[in-house]
Amino acid sequence: MLAAVFQVREAAHGDTDRKPALHVLLWQRALDPQRGNWSLPGGRLGDDEDLTSSVRRQLAEKVDLRELAHLEQLAVFSDPYRVPGDRTIASTFLGLVPSPAVPELPPDTRWHPVNDLPPMAFDHGTMVEHARTRLVAKLSYTNIGFALAPTEFALSALRDIYSAALGHHVDATNLQRVLERRKVITRTGTTARSGRSGGRPAALYRFTESRYRVTDEFAALRPPG
Amino acid sequence: MLAAVFQVREAAHGDTDRKPALHVLLWQRALDPQRGNWSLPGGRLGDDEDLTSSVRRQLAEKVDLRELAHLEQLAVFSDPYRVPGDRTIASTFLGLVPSPAVPELPPDTRWHPVNDLPPMAFDHGTMVEHARTRLVAKLSYTNIGFALAPTEFALSALRDIYSAALGHHVDATNLQRVLERRKVITRTGTTARSGRSGGRPAALYRFTESRYRVTDEFAALRPPG
Repeated sequence: MLAAVFQVREAAHGDTDRKPALHVLLWQRALDPQRGNWSLPGGRLGDDEDLTSSVRRQLAEKVDLRELAHLEQLAVFSDPYRVPGDRTIASTFLGLVPSPAVPELPPDTRWHPVNDLPPMAFDHGTMVEHARTRLVAKLSYTNIGFALAPTEFALSALRDIYSAALGHHVDATNLQRVLERRKVITRTGTTARSGRSGGRPAALYRFTESRYRVTDEFAALRPPG
Repeated sequence: MLAAVFQVREAAHGDTDRKPALHVLLWQRALDPQRGNWSLPGGRLGDDEDLTSSVRRQLAEKVDLRELAHLEQLAVFSDPYRVPGDRTIASTFLGLVPSPAVPELPPDTRWHPVNDLPPMAFDHGTMVEHARTRLVAKLSYTNIGFALAPTEFALSALRDIYSAALGHHVDATNLQRVLERRKVITRTGTTARSGRSGGRPAALYRFTESRYRVTDEFAALRPPG
């Protein structure tokens, strides 16, 4: 198993542009083949575990699992020649860590911006691309944003998170309209302690549910009653 | 690999209720373990093929592949004790066959109504349930219906297909409204040769695209331009 674990983070060494960006958790290979290249975390399936238990166990070695708000199976990568040596089939996962969490990492492991990946091992770059595509799609028809956002947030902060995850600018007013209409987010009734200089204090929101669901069914296709 | 291949078909031995129902392709085990129980088609991954090539090759032994309008990876079933003997991990697929096609089948293989499955081998009943759940979800936010429907159809026929796949009654007028608004279906400009007795001839429709896509993105989240 291999996991693409994403988090929206401030750029580590941003100069003028300090907008948050989507990052992926990678570790640097210390041994050949492809020494120095960067890999997704993961490892071999144990005899007595299923894939999900296994990927959770292996991620726990890299990142505090209390921080992992969403984990789902993605595609299986099964090209016979995807890695040298013995044939290895990789079942991939998408993991999401909410924005303010700062899990401790081992020394060989770092967050990298998805739009500026380092040299990647084997087909791991393709896997990151695939995981991001799935995340982008699911932001459109599910409430999966809860797994990237803080518990409470101003709309401008949520707009930055969606913009980073989608890879393009999103308008905060449109985002509010569509997410409120679909009941994905709810006002908490409180405001941020300090508003932007000169502005009103911003209203705070939370995700209505912190459990993954499709939000966007055709009403006409719902079961009756 | 194991594949849940679905088709909406008339009940083989319906009495009064001749509504079409969602069926799944199963073969009956001739040998132990679980002789006589029904299995999803599939088999072992060959050394020189990836999962998708392998499942296509193995399905071709059961069903004419020209009839397979959609094939996608589903979950991996990896419980260490899911089958007796050597550990076997099953990567599952969803396949869809359009409604009027009548592929020839080998003698051990039959279509069974998903709502009335025969005794199933191992965890294959769970796999059928899982595949159906995915199909139901995707009918809501994609154009996947194209892979179950004829090339041209009256709305009443499409309503029967959606109702069968979803497992509950769908209103034809609501279905038309939502699918036309999302540009999933388009009028052909022609009508069925013979209308229902006493009625006007029914307008014919087709799916706008016969390639799978998500139809239901939040407009606010689309890339600009």
